[in-house]
Amino acid sequence: MANKAAGTKGKGGAKLAKSSDRGSTRAAAKAGDTAKKIESLALFVASSARKQQSPRMEIPTRSLSNVRFDPKKAIIEMGSNKQAREFFDLGMAKKFMQTLLIASACKQLISAGKTASIRQLYYMSKHDVAGTREKTFNDQAESDPIIEDLEVSIDALREELHVFASNRGALVGPVTLVDDGNTLDCMRMGSAGYAVPGIVEPDVIQFKKCTAKYILHVEKDTIWRRFYEDRFHEKHQCIVTHGGGQPARGMRRLLRRMHQELKLPIYCLLDNDPWGYYIYSVIKQGSINLAYESRRMAVPAARFLGVSSFDYDRCGLSDDVKIGLEDGDIRLAKQILAYPWFKGKKPWEKEIRKMIQNGFKMEVEAMINKRLTYLTEEYVPMKIRDKKQWLD
Amino acid sequence: MANKAAGTKGKGGAKLAKSSDRGSTRAAAKAGDTAKKIESLALFVASSARKQQSPRMEIPTRSLSNVRFDPKKAIIEMGSNKQAREFFDLGMAKKFMQTLLIASACKQLISAGKTASIRQLYYMSKHDVAGTREKTFNDQAESDPIIEDLEVSIDALREELHVFASNRGALVGPVTLVDDGNTLDCMRMGSAGYAVPGIVEPDVIQFKKCTAKYILHVEKDTIWRRFYEDRFHEKHQCIVTHGGGQPARGMRRLLRRMHQELKLPIYCLLDNDPWGYYIYSVIKQGSINLAYESRRMAVPAARFLGVSSFDYDRCGLSDDVKIGLEDGDIRLAKQILAYPWFKGKKPWEKEIRKMIQNGFKMEVEAMINKRLTYLTEEYVPMKIRDKKQWLD
Repeated sequence: MANKAAGTKGKGGAKLAKSSDRGSTRAAAKAGDTAKKIESLALFVASSARKQQSPRMEIPTRSLSNVRFDPKKAIIEMGSNKQAREFFDLGMAKKFMQTLLIASACKQLISAGKTASIRQLYYMSKHDVAGTREKTFNDQAESDPIIEDLEVSIDALREELHVFASNRGALVGPVTLVDDGNTLDCMRMGSAGYAVPGIVEPDVIQFKKCTAKYILHVEKDTIWRRFYEDRFHEKHQCIVTHGGGQPARGMRRLLRRMHQELKLPIYCLLDNDPWGYYIYSVIKQGSINLAYESRRMAVPAARFLGVSSFDYDRCGLSDDVKIGLEDGDIRLAKQILAYPWFKGKKPWEKEIRKMIQNGFKMEVEAMINKRLTYLTEEYVPMKIRDKKQWLD
Repeated sequence: MANKAAGTKGKGGAKLAKSSDRGSTRAAAKAGDTAKKIESLALFVASSARKQQSPRMEIPTRSLSNVRFDPKKAIIEMGSNKQAREFFDLGMAKKFMQTLLIASACKQLISAGKTASIRQLYYMSKHDVAGTREKTFNDQAESDPIIEDLEVSIDALREELHVFASNRGALVGPVTLVDDGNTLDCMRMGSAGYAVPGIVEPDVIQFKKCTAKYILHVEKDTIWRRFYEDRFHEKHQCIVTHGGGQPARGMRRLLRRMHQELKLPIYCLLDNDPWGYYIYSVIKQGSINLAYESRRMAVPAARFLGVSSFDYDRCGLSDDVKIGLEDGDIRLAKQILAYPWFKGKKPWEKEIRKMIQNGFKMEVEAMINKRLTYLTEEYVPMKIRDKKQWLD
């Protein structure tokens, strides 16, 4: 695989500069698009009012009942159910007003070329409702779902609305990218790597050059540091990323973009516990809560390298690595087993059942019990070589 | 202040390269020192055994009773109480063995030029006690305090023992540093800034050039991003740092090094709540738990810019920014008021009492309620200009 991927890479690299230039123009167009979509929403509301009709919007339903797994695309998607939100409806009037306030704040952000966090957007939009003592928003729990409503209504990613999530996660490896006008060689960004920002859309980040063969995604910064220090990225010409736990939107979107635009396979190295399976599932298929974003965030071709429930015997580990399963682990494992995207996949069913049968879970970090560099010098190279051990 | 600091800077910059070269040599010597200290510990134990005495170590007491605030140095320090840990004592034998195991693992790390997280150190040191079915460590809660024991016993920072904490926090600003051999201009590190690693000792990080006038430390990455996007670091020629909440060891140590070696004043911008006061207190005086590290981590000259309880009236804020105090907040505020390093400082007593009297707390982010750029274009510049508003 390595050779083949490397071969593709040469060509990929050459095509890259051009495609990212185009990416940048496309991005500017995209920002204009998003602003236009908000305007259309506003015009639609205004025109209903002018026609003396109740101003209304159509909002796709963001509930579990409207989420489905598309086995062909292999991602979690939203169905087509919609709800009307009307102004002349006592139960909806406040939410209607809130939706327009958030839309208006996003439009301001886009026009000013600025971004804000969801908390900042809340404070921007909070004020007295004219002539009353009521607040437009009482707390952020009211504004967050409205942002999501807006995203699905006008079909724009949160980042396209200029709303940012956490800067979390980092990477190291042979890729050169431009971030906010700074050309950065990600092989030489210091001992904590290149910090992945909350917004990684093509107007902020463009890829310049890449000679990496694949991406290895690990869960936490402490494991990432093990790979960094052992120079795994140099020895194996790959990009090593971490999400600081469940990866934030920026990291997920960057993984997706690197996979798609740089044609890089993605391998995940996560703990052998239900949480590890879940992180993998979100990277691969998307999350249930944000089903409408899978299309632009999920990486259906991501592969799970380990830690697998079978590794205890396979790698001859000692019982020092065992952490007893708790009831909650078993419950969550069974839940995951029932996800339509795991269900029916024999190797995954075996994997999860084996964990329950083992009665223990194992952390990636536990592999160090053998030897400090066992993880980076033996375990992962062995896993990458032996395709039969990959879980899809 | 700004001009004076800038003046000093020119000279500071010139002196820098040399002092950091020396720093590097010092650092190598330091690593040797730490290894030697571990050897001495081992030799002492071995020689007691040879003399047919009970092998023993002296370990400074890490309890609240042995912590005191030194008003002259203005840091929290450890007292001089020590406890003997003896091998031939049923209650101490296991801890004795554990201390030597951890010391031995650290010595291995130093010799191999490798580092490990506290979790990795746990897995490295966990195994069966020869001839028994007992484990050397049952979980990490057993190994963590032993690492701290070792730190105080041989007077070495955790980082000098090659044990790393989280890579957390980032910065942007006119400072060029060398991190792991990579020369990095921190003005051009992309939109999430330079990622601060868990270990920032002089053998990893050296300062090359600095034209910054001061450091502004903010709590979270979302606020940091506001400053970054509004180009605060360019307009005010300063370094803007964030710790991702309570700053990790790497960030604290880097603040301390930049303050000391680059002669930069440090201003903190934190939430107006007990947690904000607490973060400030840890940056400034050190923490009670890790009192023995204050000497090398604390920045007694750090200043608190805000958000102050008096800003509600002073800045003409609307009640949109108010978040009601909870019982826990009031309890914690009173606790902080009683800390010896706040007690007797009139401005701090007024500040904390005013918050309790207000009955509400305020987040830094809430300043955005006025205007998206109010924080970066008016609030902080006003605070930096008006020394009378600083809290010491």
